[in-house]
Amino acid sequence: MCQLLGMNCNTPTDITFSFEGFRRRAGLTDQHTDGFGIAFFEGKGVRIFRDNRPGASSPMADLISQYKIKSFNVISHIRKATRGDVNLENTHPFIRELWGENWVFAHNGTVEGVRPCADCHYQPIGTTDSEAAFCCIVSRLRERFDKKPSEKDIFDAVVEITSDIATHGVFNFIMSNGHWMIARCSTRLYYVTRKAPFSKALRDDDVEIDFSKYTTENDKVTIIATQPLTKNENWIKMKNGGYVFFKNGELVEEIEGTLPDNQSHV
Amino acid sequence: MCQLLGMNCNTPTDITFSFEGFRRRAGLTDQHTDGFGIAFFEGKGVRIFRDNRPGASSPMADLISQYKIKSFNVISHIRKATRGDVNLENTHPFIRELWGENWVFAHNGTVEGVRPCADCHYQPIGTTDSEAAFCCIVSRLRERFDKKPSEKDIFDAVVEITSDIATHGVFNFIMSNGHWMIARCSTRLYYVTRKAPFSKALRDDDVEIDFSKYTTENDKVTIIATQPLTKNENWIKMKNGGYVFFKNGELVEEIEGTLPDNQSHV
Repeated sequence: MCQLLGMNCNTPTDITFSFEGFRRRAGLTDQHTDGFGIAFFEGKGVRIFRDNRPGASSPMADLISQYKIKSFNVISHIRKATRGDVNLENTHPFIRELWGENWVFAHNGTVEGVRPCADCHYQPIGTTDSEAAFCCIVSRLRERFDKKPSEKDIFDAVVEITSDIATHGVFNFIMSNGHWMIARCSTRLYYVTRKAPFSKALRDDDVEIDFSKYTTENDKVTIIATQPLTKNENWIKMKNGGYVFFKNGELVEEIEGTLPDNQSHV
Repeated sequence: MCQLLGMNCNTPTDITFSFEGFRRRAGLTDQHTDGFGIAFFEGKGVRIFRDNRPGASSPMADLISQYKIKSFNVISHIRKATRGDVNLENTHPFIRELWGENWVFAHNGTVEGVRPCADCHYQPIGTTDSEAAFCCIVSRLRERFDKKPSEKDIFDAVVEITSDIATHGVFNFIMSNGHWMIARCSTRLYYVTRKAPFSKALRDDDVEIDFSKYTTENDKVTIIATQPLTKNENWIKMKNGGYVFFKNGELVEEIEGTLPDNQSHV
């Protein structure tokens, strides 16, 4: 399986502290060595870096850590291949233009037999179930709405479409258009919102950061991850079938999820 | 104005020698300082690096030179903004998925009043005339062909569609789907094909390379650029309205162009 990392904030934020802990799992503290990718929204544009080498040792990942790109929305993924070869086109996150915006998506799990129809708007480039599922989501959204609808309409439609896709397997995902971030939990996903009063956090590799040195009292930064990245923060465990919609670092809407947590070790 | 660089080969080739000369024009030897971008095809995937800082001094460009990515098809662009703000979403090259492939496009010139229709398949994300023109090209191709047609059909359709767009201004461009490279000249575009027997080339900043040390006798590497990058090679100057279709480093098809060269200093 793979691991997901997302960040949604109300101020451009450097994700290095979280990304450094996250990418250690791609070869050092865990076995997600089949590539990594990270997308940083910057205005309406996106920088996407992908590598089919392990995140822990990739020179590309080293650059990202040194570059300290600040962003309102970041999605990252480290891959343990289950479907599709290890190559660049199969490396998350995936991206498509929808309604004149960049939409970015990363998935953890496996969904069997999900593909967009042959004449659907968006077609997969690689061979992963994940990209095929993403193409289904954006194709169906586009069929449903000629023009960009309200955020509430988007969230409701995404919940409906992806609940359907999720019946085909395990479907944890994070998705963003640069304005908001939607995450769905099938089996395992946590989030934490950092806001004033900021304090120290201890990463699971025992590196400490004092967020109060880097923040203002108005900052709100939400981190979403497959596993908590720090030891001493109040990470909220999402339930199976649960959805969150974050904007400016704040939880705007939530579907709590009702399924029993019987796959939490997938 | 901007400058274009393209490479199409029959073997994965490191573009560093050409890119280093090219990016010097982005702040050192010329004034194309409003961002740069470069796309490397790798299988069906693409690595795209963009920066709104000058190519000559961008740490991202430094990484690219160090990384020595080998690719069959590369498109790069250094920008002197004429339309659209200097930001990431306005930085070439642009990318869209068409028929399950990555299509990458970069433009030099300005085309006035070209936009895809409101319900066209592809919509621009930024505010450049270039991205709008690219969205027109891929939208019209998609309208015309439900499924990917032959390369001959693609070339003929691209010529027809872009000849129309070119009536709106200056339209030098390079485009690739990872298999072939199409280039159009409005005002200024050159190409050179390197093949056995390979010899030494002298870059315009007097750096010399001996290609025979890095190649085999079967290699074919075509470089397309707004201005020749070397002093001692036989760069072919394209005529206005001319098109070339390269595959595996070889010129497969050509439309020579007939318009008088009356804008060569644009």
